[in-house]
Amino acid sequence: MNELPDYDSMLAVALGEARKGLAEGGIPIGAALFDNKGNLLGKGRNRRVQENDASVHGETDAFRKAGRQKTYLDKIMVTTLAPCWYCSGLVRQFKIGTVVIGEAENFDGGIGWLKENGVKVINLNSQECIKMLADYINANPEIWNEDIGEE
Amino acid sequence: MNELPDYDSMLAVALGEARKGLAEGGIPIGAALFDNKGNLLGKGRNRRVQENDASVHGETDAFRKAGRQKTYLDKIMVTTLAPCWYCSGLVRQFKIGTVVIGEAENFDGGIGWLKENGVKVINLNSQECIKMLADYINANPEIWNEDIGEE
Repeated sequence: MNELPDYDSMLAVALGEARKGLAEGGIPIGAALFDNKGNLLGKGRNRRVQENDASVHGETDAFRKAGRQKTYLDKIMVTTLAPCWYCSGLVRQFKIGTVVIGEAENFDGGIGWLKENGVKVINLNSQECIKMLADYINANPEIWNEDIGEE
Repeated sequence: MNELPDYDSMLAVALGEARKGLAEGGIPIGAALFDNKGNLLGKGRNRRVQENDASVHGETDAFRKAGRQKTYLDKIMVTTLAPCWYCSGLVRQFKIGTVVIGEAENFDGGIGWLKENGVKVINLNSQECIKMLADYINANPEIWNEDIGEE
């Protein structure tokens, strides 16, 4: 009888997307958008490498796949990595109420700013998320830097 | 002999996209990304209505169309309207050096935040941009509110 949202199961969906991205040769970051009952609305992954598309981050892809929603206050964005400024801006503009992150070790993006602006941020501190992305960054530093706008 | 960037001509490209969006029945906001010599890299427009895609704002569309770039410090994002938080986050994350806006009357988004973070912001205060969007908002308040995450 656990009525709390099952954030670990939600993160597993985002992790599945990240692993799919890795298998495609891409940056392993995945995300998924859920409603407050835990129903999946959309999921996605970074596809910079696969499609040469700099605009597709995990969060923006999950947001797109979820289609048009009247409100996001009751929605939960789950992502394997703390959202960058681009994706944090998405969360703030559309007032997504809750952000669940797998980790903020490899990159902490805009989570402090989101908290200051009233977004509930939950860090699951997933060792699996941390290791998967750290291994990728070590092997592909140039692609990683490109993805976060560092030269 | 004017060696300054011709921002008005750049804005005309973004305005052309906005008008195209309006003709398609969409929200009339357009954008274009240029290099520092004034070469067009990509242009786009809001397509929330046309494609039911909440993720396609003018700026994110222009950014996508420009493909992967090694740096954005020397790039110029031109948009008919001050960028929302989502698009301001895009500018900040990828360190786009200059943002030229048609107007900030209908919506001022994150331009103060961008300035604080070192982005050069130029407001051309275009009456054409102001009127086009104001007319759209007056006629379609619900779609406009959806696009900026207001209920």
